[in-house]
Amino acid sequence: MLLVIDGLGDIRTETQPATALESAALPTLDGLARRSALGRLVPVAPGVTPGSGPGHLALFGHDPTSPEADIGRGVLEALGEGVPVAPGDVAARGNFATADAAGNLTDRRAGRIPTEECRRLCAAINAALAAAPPPGAEVTVEPGEGHRFVLLLRGQGLSPELEDTDPQRLGVPPLPIRARGPQGEKTAAAARHAMAVIERVLAAEPRANRALLRGFSQLPHLPSMRDLYHLDCGAFAGYPLYRGVAAACGMEVVPCGKSAGEIFAAVRGHWDRFDFFFVHVKQADQAGEDGDLAAKVRVLEEVDGALTGLLALRPAVFAVTGDHSTPAPLKAHSWHPVPLLLHSDSCSRDGSTELSERAAARGELGTIPSYQLFGLLLANAGRLAKYGA
Amino acid sequence: MLLVIDGLGDIRTETQPATALESAALPTLDGLARRSALGRLVPVAPGVTPGSGPGHLALFGHDPTSPEADIGRGVLEALGEGVPVAPGDVAARGNFATADAAGNLTDRRAGRIPTEECRRLCAAINAALAAAPPPGAEVTVEPGEGHRFVLLLRGQGLSPELEDTDPQRLGVPPLPIRARGPQGEKTAAAARHAMAVIERVLAAEPRANRALLRGFSQLPHLPSMRDLYHLDCGAFAGYPLYRGVAAACGMEVVPCGKSAGEIFAAVRGHWDRFDFFFVHVKQADQAGEDGDLAAKVRVLEEVDGALTGLLALRPAVFAVTGDHSTPAPLKAHSWHPVPLLLHSDSCSRDGSTELSERAAARGELGTIPSYQLFGLLLANAGRLAKYGA
Repeated sequence: MLLVIDGLGDIRTETQPATALESAALPTLDGLARRSALGRLVPVAPGVTPGSGPGHLALFGHDPTSPEADIGRGVLEALGEGVPVAPGDVAARGNFATADAAGNLTDRRAGRIPTEECRRLCAAINAALAAAPPPGAEVTVEPGEGHRFVLLLRGQGLSPELEDTDPQRLGVPPLPIRARGPQGEKTAAAARHAMAVIERVLAAEPRANRALLRGFSQLPHLPSMRDLYHLDCGAFAGYPLYRGVAAACGMEVVPCGKSAGEIFAAVRGHWDRFDFFFVHVKQADQAGEDGDLAAKVRVLEEVDGALTGLLALRPAVFAVTGDHSTPAPLKAHSWHPVPLLLHSDSCSRDGSTELSERAAARGELGTIPSYQLFGLLLANAGRLAKYGA
Repeated sequence: MLLVIDGLGDIRTETQPATALESAALPTLDGLARRSALGRLVPVAPGVTPGSGPGHLALFGHDPTSPEADIGRGVLEALGEGVPVAPGDVAARGNFATADAAGNLTDRRAGRIPTEECRRLCAAINAALAAAPPPGAEVTVEPGEGHRFVLLLRGQGLSPELEDTDPQRLGVPPLPIRARGPQGEKTAAAARHAMAVIERVLAAEPRANRALLRGFSQLPHLPSMRDLYHLDCGAFAGYPLYRGVAAACGMEVVPCGKSAGEIFAAVRGHWDRFDFFFVHVKQADQAGEDGDLAAKVRVLEEVDGALTGLLALRPAVFAVTGDHSTPAPLKAHSWHPVPLLLHSDSCSRDGSTELSERAAARGELGTIPSYQLFGLLLANAGRLAKYGA
């Protein structure tokens, strides 16, 4: 079982002399630390701040810098909004935007229109696309938050090799849809057709009169966890992005609530169904992004309080870590190594007495790349054969 | 000088709160630690448990995951039994086995026949092979322990590209000898002929009436230690496998006994002959495999007691480590990092006061891949030039 507390790691500064883990009262985690080995994970490389996609793919055993683990912006946005992306689909991240009478962009986010307005626009666009379907592909848009949407193309022989139309600056018109090579022409034709429909729908809008697309991408060709590790894997996460990344790795996504208590209850309810449990708690990252140390401490204490229910299941191997650090003083993801706790009968207890950045830095697991964690989990589960005779 | 205490590393568990190194009284090693730098070696990668072959090749400076360091099962078995394998020879690991009247396997180890019976069978087979030699290759079998033997093919243009004949399950007959491609056909023909001879000899046996082969392999094409490091290297090991791996790396194998005292005495007797000494003590691994912490402690204390005789030689660089960990609670090789002690005038004393897993995890050499140790030894010996101007 891998418990990912999103954004777990934190830092010490002049104004924040102790991290969230060091400030929180965590009797269950500290007790577990006494029977565990600690260490730290480096998600990508020293100094490299990961997004949630690479952060999680690394925890699932993929070198996040390898081409196979490259999750494009469009697919990640779709996964994050819970839009079902199938192999072969092409997804792009969309922004509603504002252009002046000359067609030059004046606001790349259309004044951050409310989500409700985004939903209304997307519904109108989908109706227009259904009435005038593009050639060779089924195209839909799915509303996100505020000005964000996802453009999804589905059909045979589609390619993600399309240039962004977002010029990333104001005073110029959106870029035309252009294929990066012959293999992208069919997809470009469908996307051009769709964009013409979209612009007709948006023509009379006061704010959202343009749409910008970037990050055309397909699901990465990741081998499934079953093929890689011979494990039936269940994903227990309250937010769509993490469910999506888990699904892209071949895990079965189990519906559950958003709080640690609800998520852990779902795990207990499905304890007999899987060999591996990916359990994801989001709120620590949100508190870090808000720069709210007290809120991050509360999340950790809530996790700690609910943890006895998970540990009662007696997982043979239990690891707690994060996909990256989200230090409250930085209000953002960061590159700092993430604390790791690993418990099993064969972990070698290393004398730690708490789960904290300080204890983790001294832990006997050492500081290793995140993508090497999964091998360690498998080894502790007795599921790896000896290398060589 | 590199002293390899086989299976040195250990772990702490609920029932074994201290490792062998932490439990043993090691006045000489602890005194040496005060004048040394400590660290840890990762033989292959986090979570990966190495066999003895990869574990030692890494200590001799080879990345054990590189193709050049791939020692096949057959060659390793031959080396382990002291069968001289020359470049170009093909060796396979053999099992005597039992099949029923229909030819289906009922026991893949022939009831674990005694070694004496194995010797008798091999002698009869070799006589029959001499009387009816296979085409294109000289074929012999060499007895191992119990049901084990080695099939050795010697001749021009042989290839290890043959499939195993051991089906790894019961109720089916042995698999036929099959080449993996045209380059293996000549070898397959010789092996098929040999197998027909072997089966004629075994036909009347009550238990060992079949032979299974796996891991057809040749000596890896390893550059010699002399070519790599400009060192004359002597190997002092009491057991055949380690002598064999050392010989495959171009070391001169010096005959010696099996105990630490006998091995160290042999080193003293050859002190003027070599630039580098590989000194191997096996028994700590055996104690670990037996799950016998007390025995492992005794081995370490025996090594410590004999060590003054080695240190009196004043090796310019002296390192103590293992090829892997063999924790007593696991009764097997494991993936856990291996403690390392490095002593030289330029090692930088790091304040350690004992050789233990705990001290090693905090040591200033850090935790590095095993295959990087040899460079460190050479540097401490003043034998590496500056990289770049």
